[in-house]
Amino acid sequence: MPTTVERIRHKRDGGELSADDIAALVAGYTQGNIPDYQMAAFLMAAFLRGMTIAETRALTEAMLYSGEVVDFSHLPQAKVDKHSTGGVGDKTSLALAPIVAAAGVAVPMISGRGLGHTGGTLDKLEAIPGFRTDLPLDTFRRLVEQLGVALIGQTREIAPADKKLYALRDVTGTVESIPLITASIMSKKLAEGIDALVLDVKFGSGAFMKTPAEAQALADALTATGESMGKRIQALLTDMNQPLGWAVGNALEVCEAQQLLRGEQLTGRFADLTFELAAHMLRLGQVAASVTEGQTLARAMVTSGKALEKWQAIIRAQGGDPQVAEDDQRLPQAAYETVVRASQSGIVTAMDTEAIGQAAVLLGAGRLTLDAVIDPAVGFRMEVELGAPVSAGDALVRVYYNAAQAVPEVEQRLLAAITITPN
Amino acid sequence: MPTTVERIRHKRDGGELSADDIAALVAGYTQGNIPDYQMAAFLMAAFLRGMTIAETRALTEAMLYSGEVVDFSHLPQAKVDKHSTGGVGDKTSLALAPIVAAAGVAVPMISGRGLGHTGGTLDKLEAIPGFRTDLPLDTFRRLVEQLGVALIGQTREIAPADKKLYALRDVTGTVESIPLITASIMSKKLAEGIDALVLDVKFGSGAFMKTPAEAQALADALTATGESMGKRIQALLTDMNQPLGWAVGNALEVCEAQQLLRGEQLTGRFADLTFELAAHMLRLGQVAASVTEGQTLARAMVTSGKALEKWQAIIRAQGGDPQVAEDDQRLPQAAYETVVRASQSGIVTAMDTEAIGQAAVLLGAGRLTLDAVIDPAVGFRMEVELGAPVSAGDALVRVYYNAAQAVPEVEQRLLAAITITPN
Repeated sequence: MPTTVERIRHKRDGGELSADDIAALVAGYTQGNIPDYQMAAFLMAAFLRGMTIAETRALTEAMLYSGEVVDFSHLPQAKVDKHSTGGVGDKTSLALAPIVAAAGVAVPMISGRGLGHTGGTLDKLEAIPGFRTDLPLDTFRRLVEQLGVALIGQTREIAPADKKLYALRDVTGTVESIPLITASIMSKKLAEGIDALVLDVKFGSGAFMKTPAEAQALADALTATGESMGKRIQALLTDMNQPLGWAVGNALEVCEAQQLLRGEQLTGRFADLTFELAAHMLRLGQVAASVTEGQTLARAMVTSGKALEKWQAIIRAQGGDPQVAEDDQRLPQAAYETVVRASQSGIVTAMDTEAIGQAAVLLGAGRLTLDAVIDPAVGFRMEVELGAPVSAGDALVRVYYNAAQAVPEVEQRLLAAITITPN
Repeated sequence: MPTTVERIRHKRDGGELSADDIAALVAGYTQGNIPDYQMAAFLMAAFLRGMTIAETRALTEAMLYSGEVVDFSHLPQAKVDKHSTGGVGDKTSLALAPIVAAAGVAVPMISGRGLGHTGGTLDKLEAIPGFRTDLPLDTFRRLVEQLGVALIGQTREIAPADKKLYALRDVTGTVESIPLITASIMSKKLAEGIDALVLDVKFGSGAFMKTPAEAQALADALTATGESMGKRIQALLTDMNQPLGWAVGNALEVCEAQQLLRGEQLTGRFADLTFELAAHMLRLGQVAASVTEGQTLARAMVTSGKALEKWQAIIRAQGGDPQVAEDDQRLPQAAYETVVRASQSGIVTAMDTEAIGQAAVLLGAGRLTLDAVIDPAVGFRMEVELGAPVSAGDALVRVYYNAAQAVPEVEQRLLAAITITPN
């Protein structure tokens, strides 16, 4: 059996590692027999030399089986989830989960927290008074069985190797590697016990992948790896050159998602993407024969009120106040608001969406480190979209805040992030 | 100031680091503020992306000044050393030091121990009864002042960054990198307070660099780095496709070096290389105007007896038995010997010199880990050279041993390492 150094050298020299090699590296590292420095050298070699799909699959499997893998094979319906690579104002999961579950497909959804400029589903859910996401796997299993859906945070039992590896990648400059990102995403998602996965791979100024080509490369790796492990995968490349929808900030995003679920807002970029993702989930979940059928079914779940009903059931089951679903006023409200206005007339031609996300972090809506505390009430209402004509003095962004001291800086950043070209 | 992760990422992406960046990395690591795992990631990035000469020089300087740098500028004569990249049977330092010192050039020589298939000068010197190589830097300084020469081991004060980095490279698959090797070699050699350095860069079956092209690349990096730091450098590429001279093993190699110093053996590959290296050292040391003059001067030091006299003075000054110089019998002697014989007639067309070195380790003449104990008496007398005609039954190698249990395996390996092609 090769030694750890031999395995590092093999990858360093551009060789392909066997599944056994990769399993030994991951198991050794997770159990503490391989030290951080050897894994760091391996990760950098893998970053620079790349990994084949066979290697990526082996890495995914080794990370997946480092922890518990939920088994829902006894449930008759298909189990389908969605994963987004992260954006600003992306609250699709909140609407998708009840829509898809209402249509008879199980949605076992284990999500993450927001970090850096991107938001996280858990933070949004926790804006709902009483809503618990830190549920044990047993409760998760029971909820999916009873309700067809549950939305929880990553537990310690899920892919512990990923947790340890991610922490190391973060401090060794080995984050932005497609095979490493792929294994990290897929090992966590496949632990949910799903049959199929829709991937929302974002590109643009607010995404980790800035260009469609980079996003496509990640989508391809994710798809090939998932399919090689027997899952049905559908990847969508979607635009993150502006926040998705009007809301940026946790309670505000719940509010926007609920407007969709209540059927109050069925058009626009957020609704369009939600129904598109839902349509693919329903097709992969085999309750719709085509994406078009899936679209129709998803919209019917909203117009019939079944999606809202499911949303209320989710909130109730996870300890939240179900009256929130029909009354946005029960969500945390910021004490103050101010408006950022256009300093000139013209057309909104670009948004630095990452900068908008960072301004939200500065306001308290997000976090830079995982242990930072966030304020669920604060955030932005985007008053303009790309392509919108504006006159000097028009509202660009409405800022909801509680603590005033960051506001001048936030306003400045928002103004700088929105490009208005005179027409 | 960039963070450590930013510096790692810059190198990872193929960028060039500033001297300040590299100094901060080395200082941070040596002082324990940068953890092993970050340095491991950096080393792998440097391994795969390479380093420019400016970066290599900065790394060398940072490692050099992590410890004490001896100052011999008050000595009127030039200070010149030689460094070999390591081979099998390479005892040139033992003969060179007294020859060059006898000619009036100071030789402040800080050497290493043997590791793996290559021998080390310290182990050879310590085969001389009483000889001490673990002398403090103060004694080293005094000996060079009084005698013009001293041969000691690396002290803790010399380039501590190199010690820590080398240990990490060893376990992270980042050893065989030309810039990292260059900085490791040059930081230790320049700490000796030298003006000039002759490099014996070996290639072939017994060398770390298997091809002349690889050896040339290392020679170029060493030369450029040393010259950029104001030193006179001469690199020679020399053949290590067979052991250098007849002796492999510590006491045996002292014996062969002494045969040269006593003028008993002034021809052959070992004598030729020693006089060539000496000639370059004397030229760089400005006591010979040319290499030809250097050759004449070096040979005169032997034939006049001055080199042997200097050798005796060295042994005496470093606590050894000076009578050894004229009497090889005072060196440790193995209890037994056996002869490996040719199984067929033909020409010796190839030697796996690394395998011969490893057979010597197995016999007890060398070590695989730095704390292993070696037997100074054991080793080989090579009875044939490349190109030699042999008949079946002729002696190929005489094996001197104390412990019998390894002998069958050693004999087998030696037989396999020497290729005889029927003619």
